[in-house]
Amino acid sequence: MEYRIEKDTMGEVKVPANVYWGAQTERSVENFKIAQDINKMPKPVIEAFAYLKKAAALTNFELGVLPAEKKDAIAAVCDEILDHKLDDQFPLVVWQTGSGTQSNMNVNEVVAYRAHVLHGGKLTDKEKFLHPNDDVNKSQSSNDTFPTAMHIAAYKILVEKTIPGLEKLRDTLKEKSKAFMHVVKIGRTHFMDATPLTLGQEFSGYVSQLDHGIKAIKNALPHLSELALGGTAVGTGINTPKGYAELVAKKIAELTGLPFITAENKFESLAAHDAIVEAHGALKTVAVSLMKIANDVRMLSSGPRAGIGEIHIPDNEPGSSIMPGKVNPTQCEALTMIAAQVLGNDVAINIGGATGHFELNVFKPMMVYNFLHSARLIGEGSVSFNDKCAAGIEPIEANIKKHVDNSLMLVTALNTKIGYYNAAAIAQDAHKRGITLKQAALEYKLKGLDFEHMTSEQFDEWVVPANMVGELKN
Amino acid sequence: MEYRIEKDTMGEVKVPANVYWGAQTERSVENFKIAQDINKMPKPVIEAFAYLKKAAALTNFELGVLPAEKKDAIAAVCDEILDHKLDDQFPLVVWQTGSGTQSNMNVNEVVAYRAHVLHGGKLTDKEKFLHPNDDVNKSQSSNDTFPTAMHIAAYKILVEKTIPGLEKLRDTLKEKSKAFMHVVKIGRTHFMDATPLTLGQEFSGYVSQLDHGIKAIKNALPHLSELALGGTAVGTGINTPKGYAELVAKKIAELTGLPFITAENKFESLAAHDAIVEAHGALKTVAVSLMKIANDVRMLSSGPRAGIGEIHIPDNEPGSSIMPGKVNPTQCEALTMIAAQVLGNDVAINIGGATGHFELNVFKPMMVYNFLHSARLIGEGSVSFNDKCAAGIEPIEANIKKHVDNSLMLVTALNTKIGYYNAAAIAQDAHKRGITLKQAALEYKLKGLDFEHMTSEQFDEWVVPANMVGELKN
Amino acid sequence: MEYRIEKDTMGEVKVPANVYWGAQTERSVENFKIAQDINKMPKPVIEAFAYLKKAAALTNFELGVLPAEKKDAIAAVCDEILDHKLDDQFPLVVWQTGSGTQSNMNVNEVVAYRAHVLHGGKLTDKEKFLHPNDDVNKSQSSNDTFPTAMHIAAYKILVEKTIPGLEKLRDTLKEKSKAFMHVVKIGRTHFMDATPLTLGQEFSGYVSQLDHGIKAIKNALPHLSELALGGTAVGTGINTPKGYAELVAKKIAELTGLPFITAENKFESLAAHDAIVEAHGALKTVAVSLMKIANDVRMLSSGPRAGIGEIHIPDNEPGSSIMPGKVNPTQCEALTMIAAQVLGNDVAINIGGATGHFELNVFKPMMVYNFLHSARLIGEGSVSFNDKCAAGIEPIEANIKKHVDNSLMLVTALNTKIGYYNAAAIAQDAHKRGITLKQAALEYKLKGLDFEHMTSEQFDEWVVPANMVGELKN
Amino acid sequence: MEYRIEKDTMGEVKVPANVYWGAQTERSVENFKIAQDINKMPKPVIEAFAYLKKAAALTNFELGVLPAEKKDAIAAVCDEILDHKLDDQFPLVVWQTGSGTQSNMNVNEVVAYRAHVLHGGKLTDKEKFLHPNDDVNKSQSSNDTFPTAMHIAAYKILVEKTIPGLEKLRDTLKEKSKAFMHVVKIGRTHFMDATPLTLGQEFSGYVSQLDHGIKAIKNALPHLSELALGGTAVGTGINTPKGYAELVAKKIAELTGLPFITAENKFESLAAHDAIVEAHGALKTVAVSLMKIANDVRMLSSGPRAGIGEIHIPDNEPGSSIMPGKVNPTQCEALTMIAAQVLGNDVAINIGGATGHFELNVFKPMMVYNFLHSARLIGEGSVSFNDKCAAGIEPIEANIKKHVDNSLMLVTALNTKIGYYNAAAIAQDAHKRGITLKQAALEYKLKGLDFEHMTSEQFDEWVVPANMVGELKN
Repeated sequence: MEYRIEKDTMGEVKVPANVYWGAQTERSVENFKIAQDINKMPKPVIEAFAYLKKAAALTNFELGVLPAEKKDAIAAVCDEILDHKLDDQFPLVVWQTGSGTQSNMNVNEVVAYRAHVLHGGKLTDKEKFLHPNDDVNKSQSSNDTFPTAMHIAAYKILVEKTIPGLEKLRDTLKEKSKAFMHVVKIGRTHFMDATPLTLGQEFSGYVSQLDHGIKAIKNALPHLSELALGGTAVGTGINTPKGYAELVAKKIAELTGLPFITAENKFESLAAHDAIVEAHGALKTVAVSLMKIANDVRMLSSGPRAGIGEIHIPDNEPGSSIMPGKVNPTQCEALTMIAAQVLGNDVAINIGGATGHFELNVFKPMMVYNFLHSARLIGEGSVSFNDKCAAGIEPIEANIKKHVDNSLMLVTALNTKIGYYNAAAIAQDAHKRGITLKQAALEYKLKGLDFEHMTSEQFDEWVVPANMVGELKN
Repeated sequence: MEYRIEKDTMGEVKVPANVYWGAQTERSVENFKIAQDINKMPKPVIEAFAYLKKAAALTNFELGVLPAEKKDAIAAVCDEILDHKLDDQFPLVVWQTGSGTQSNMNVNEVVAYRAHVLHGGKLTDKEKFLHPNDDVNKSQSSNDTFPTAMHIAAYKILVEKTIPGLEKLRDTLKEKSKAFMHVVKIGRTHFMDATPLTLGQEFSGYVSQLDHGIKAIKNALPHLSELALGGTAVGTGINTPKGYAELVAKKIAELTGLPFITAENKFESLAAHDAIVEAHGALKTVAVSLMKIANDVRMLSSGPRAGIGEIHIPDNEPGSSIMPGKVNPTQCEALTMIAAQVLGNDVAINIGGATGHFELNVFKPMMVYNFLHSARLIGEGSVSFNDKCAAGIEPIEANIKKHVDNSLMLVTALNTKIGYYNAAAIAQDAHKRGITLKQAALEYKLKGLDFEHMTSEQFDEWVVPANMVGELKN
Repeated sequence: MEYRIEKDTMGEVKVPANVYWGAQTERSVENFKIAQDINKMPKPVIEAFAYLKKAAALTNFELGVLPAEKKDAIAAVCDEILDHKLDDQFPLVVWQTGSGTQSNMNVNEVVAYRAHVLHGGKLTDKEKFLHPNDDVNKSQSSNDTFPTAMHIAAYKILVEKTIPGLEKLRDTLKEKSKAFMHVVKIGRTHFMDATPLTLGQEFSGYVSQLDHGIKAIKNALPHLSELALGGTAVGTGINTPKGYAELVAKKIAELTGLPFITAENKFESLAAHDAIVEAHGALKTVAVSLMKIANDVRMLSSGPRAGIGEIHIPDNEPGSSIMPGKVNPTQCEALTMIAAQVLGNDVAINIGGATGHFELNVFKPMMVYNFLHSARLIGEGSVSFNDKCAAGIEPIEANIKKHVDNSLMLVTALNTKIGYYNAAAIAQDAHKRGITLKQAALEYKLKGLDFEHMTSEQFDEWVVPANMVGELKN
Repeated sequence: MEYRIEKDTMGEVKVPANVYWGAQTERSVENFKIAQDINKMPKPVIEAFAYLKKAAALTNFELGVLPAEKKDAIAAVCDEILDHKLDDQFPLVVWQTGSGTQSNMNVNEVVAYRAHVLHGGKLTDKEKFLHPNDDVNKSQSSNDTFPTAMHIAAYKILVEKTIPGLEKLRDTLKEKSKAFMHVVKIGRTHFMDATPLTLGQEFSGYVSQLDHGIKAIKNALPHLSELALGGTAVGTGINTPKGYAELVAKKIAELTGLPFITAENKFESLAAHDAIVEAHGALKTVAVSLMKIANDVRMLSSGPRAGIGEIHIPDNEPGSSIMPGKVNPTQCEALTMIAAQVLGNDVAINIGGATGHFELNVFKPMMVYNFLHSARLIGEGSVSFNDKCAAGIEPIEANIKKHVDNSLMLVTALNTKIGYYNAAAIAQDAHKRGITLKQAALEYKLKGLDFEHMTSEQFDEWVVPANMVGELKN
């Protein structure tokens, strides 16, 4: 490979001839040979950097510390990054310095050197039109840019992917809930037969879970909307012009269309990432909900002959390489694996969040990596589950009816008519003898009442599953 | 021991002669010999049951399904429970049925049999004034009472213990922040010397963390305010009188003075405990904050001679059984152990929350046990840390000044005066030769400027730590 | 309450008049008002201290640094502690100093002052026969005694409670596996019907899991057998007589009957608790196994009418306060809650283990608390599950047979006879039309073979569930 | 893009014209649009599949169920996969069916179709030389191949990357321990000054941690060496020739050079992945160790002026974009982030392992993904930390000496000379007055001794840090 020589404060470094990055990026490539093919700094972080570098340049210009042409040059490269034209210029991995300094410098170098080339220069020129530190990083520090990028990336993915994905699934489940609202089925508690409800009621619980989960995510957005930028090295804002923090947050809000504000307290913003911890707390709550929902769906669709078999889910692929004709709840499996992953990611984030020291938390790349992973998995996993599974769920009415008709738990309807003990005895008798509840009820000699035997008409009047499901709300 | 005979639907059971509980409680004592001396059902759950049983009786009476004297009898025993007169009547452990049915029955039995005795009866009477199921449990099921008790207990402890404890600590740290606002000290990023800030600024970060944490907890309260009661067995509300759910929630709100409402969707309330998962997500966020704060405090107070030694914390006890005169940051240690515990509890809660099936989650007792544990540990741990440590924190000004004066990182102040590369070279020279920054600065031959050497006056004018800490907010 | 005055290096403290503990214990009671009624230092830690204090006294005597009568006095009180005569003398909680110093001093004080009383003195005597530090704690530091107590307690509970409990359950499941070895049933993969196996084979998987799990725990014992004692304050063994470390480990081994040895490296023993982390890694593995097993059992026993219903588990209690006749898998629920708890405890232990600094880990009490909790829950939970559930499991042969006979997955037996695609088509046809596999097979026009239709005899010869379960091992 | 038509049991699918994969792979690409650019099935799993497909072909041939030329054709493509010639033929992601069926079929299809092309055919031929199911998957099921691939991949990475990486770091630390064995330094417990030890002793603790950690990993290998292959669909071995399981394991052992054996119990092997859970329990233990070690290193190297500053670590890169001359412990930061990640991955694995049902665990891809991630991060992270940090650690003797000389904790040496209380009083006096221990000692009026004042000679004789560090072992 051909190289050129780049320099930083520590000396010279050989850098591949044609890349836009410079000395500090290259040092990191050499120093952190860890999972380089699988753990690149997530793209949303790079994008977020493009927004914030552009916003910083606009702000620096507006506050009189950066000339117009440098501002324009920086903005132009940032736009290229946002257009994904420079995707291959960010080779660094998550497992670098914990402040993300090296990714900040990677962006600074790429912006500076690409701008120099756009400005007509060559990568091998000693002096360049823009300096990575003095220009691109002006009024910034890794210590405030990286957490700013974390919040931009996290907020964006939540509102653009996670929440819409969940809402799509929620809406489908709501439709299903309405459509199935009158399908009376057996309830199951402790995995055991219980009193009836409707399939629509069952699904309404899932809808309610997702509604609450989406609300929990939204509750976490304000903390994420606070940006560290302007805190520079330790939170004091050293080396920034007056008014910088507020203005740069405003610019970022304009560029992204999202309601970012400057953090009231920058010391927290650098030293802790509780906003990430808190928001991922909402994501893990949603993961818990999705695990429950997907588990129910796979169990309800189990069978076809020796399972519960109350719903049918779409057949998307042959299920088994050896068992012909088998169809598996693969979307449920993907979604529950995702839920497990998110619950694991949560712990990594907690540990990272808890282990900051003094003015800087140095688990930043790991934290944002896990956050973005979870947010994306939930968003895309929900859409996949929705499109390929939930949207096609249909009741298997024959099985549902069979289960209700066979059930002993309808006996509950008799509690208020013949008392708890009589009812229990009837159910136990039916259970022991393997007969229907009705047969047992008619044969049983009632105790403590003014009549000794229930009539067939009484049973049919008293035991009506559809009367046991309460008020149906759509 | 003397016994009496009690009966339930499965037959006879020998119960200790003098206890108020009955057959079902006793079966559970026999069936679950697991950690019986250390894992009793938490007291706040029993209290919550007292509130809800009383509220249910009042509601049943008001809706015409329970006579006045039975209502009064139930209420009277509930009041005794709330007065802690019956604390020894709840022998069951967390590791029982996952619906908490047995603890619900424990309460039903104690209320019924104690009421019978208050009513003049004997425990050995065959017929009793109140029936545990037909009267005390009227219009209820374990499946809706236990989650209701979970929410009452969780909400109550958060607003009565957790939040006040955190607020107390937050207020102390805020006072400290103000008091220390002008104490200029060295910053530390990557655990390395960085540019200065004030001790008050450093503490303001902790205050901001706790402010956000308290807000996160409060965000979770509305979900916890939703009560399952009225859902009965599977969420349909079978066997409840019309209007019961709304009214019983209103009664509970009145009795507790807390804004409980009936859950809009009871199917979620029984089948999932996302509200607990979500609220504990806020608690784990706070645990992460407390770990950071307590770690900082212990490190800042480290020494006395070979550590950082910038703050003094109270000496509460002799620190070592072998090293005389040693004082340890024991409150920090307790608080960080608590944080670790809460992060562990969070995982247990997540797994429990994710593993519900169909109409019922059966990890209820484990979930509420961990929730109450965390909420209490954070509340009481914060108060302990506050009273015995935070309230007594004082700066050690001599050490703080020494660190600032020695620091090389003040060089940052020179960036805008002599450029990044000149500044870096000076710092590196001082570092290499072990001299002060000023000495290095004066000796260094500047590059690319119109003057070759900095003067002593320039240095003193440019490098003023107090000018590097930005605007001070109180 | 009446008080007496005790003194330590920090001054005077009022101590309840009749307790054996002294100034340092009392300071801890006052300083750590955190969960005092529910989180006492676990009893097995106190017991372990009794062993080690006695062993230290014997060793100090043998090495000539403690007179015989003091040695005897210490040993006598340690024996009382082991006889549980002094259980109420250890009031401290887990949430104290992270080194456990205060519990070490609690033991030192109780041993010294109780010995003084046994020796004829009064608690109010200024000079006492034994000094807590100079005599009882001789050749020791909290920093080596507490981790020694951790290992003694952890090793003991594993071999005395956890492993025997697991072995009991494993043996029962092994018996069941043998007893059920010829009960052919439908297999289930992806929760969907699959090819058959026998119920005994299914249970043999559980046996194998527990066998491996027990082995994993045993693999962790050697690390736990290494004792820190002799390392004193920082691992160097300062203030111990020559040969002390080896001899005191030998004494502890003799007193406990367990193969303890002195740790080869004491610096690790104080600064890290990887042995606890590692051994709990085995416990969490077992928790994972138990979750799987208990989940299977509850699902296999689900029904009675609308579930899987292939096994019957014992009816230990009425299952529902509202649904008469319902029997729930309560032991499965307790065991799965325990598994979730252990998985949470694991995280708390990991965080504690990872957060030690320099020469001392200060998460000791929290770590041993969680370890002992898990070890006990697994041990007692396994016994409970064994005695009240596993031992009574019986197949429900009618349901098992029905499921096999109905199954479409027997079609797999035809793969090698008529090819994968023909077989798949038959299964799909039977599925679509809701008919039996045999009916579909006979009607189907085979492709690519030298015969167009399967005969009834061929089907019966080819599709024999019992021939599809492979070799049966007992 | 150009397409060709492929078929499976569900019908036709359009597949990109030039790829070797077929219908089932393509369905999965379409059905699981989740994190497709970042979560491909890990390469070590694909490699493991190549080993096992080749071994299965060899075995099938040897047992007479596969002709020689098909065997050779399969083996040839497997070798191409192992030579990384077909890396772009495996497009599937982790978030697919939980059995990994689709990745098994991906391999089956690629082997079959690539072999067909090698054999002179075209991808568009209707009939192909090899059939993915009937030939490549012969005597196999996804349900036994995927867990076999999991064990092969996991075992291989542990012995080829994880353990060697840890051993490299262990060896370096051992050398450092020896080299620093006589460098007397202050100890720190509770982050507070304590009695001295040598830097070599301190490092010996790290060596001991890693020695134990490596042993823990090795303890887990036997369980991982057990292969599921031969269990086919549910563990019974249906559709395999006699002797297949043992022989195929032997072939895999030969091909990989690793001691694989056939699992004694195949039901466990499919339904549970406790071996993965157990082995990752060892990895998380190591992560805990690495967190401790890397934290110590960063804290010991903190400064340069206002930290602990007892060791120097290599300067690999400029530390800050704003603070010139700053060097950060970036390798420590990468390693501690890795440790946090591994602790998170552990939880994901635990949840996956615990949530299997009946005959199949369907969290397989997620489990192996996290396992391989952790194993690789630890292996490569240890090497990076070793090469770029640990290998270059040097003591900063001036600071070390200053800390020892200043220390008050040397007072411990006086305990045995003048008693605990006199010693404590001297230390407290020196602390209070900010003077040296010696000065305080000489001025102090001793109590309860036959001399009132210590002489300077006595102090110098009694207080010798080098005498306080015990026996030095190399």
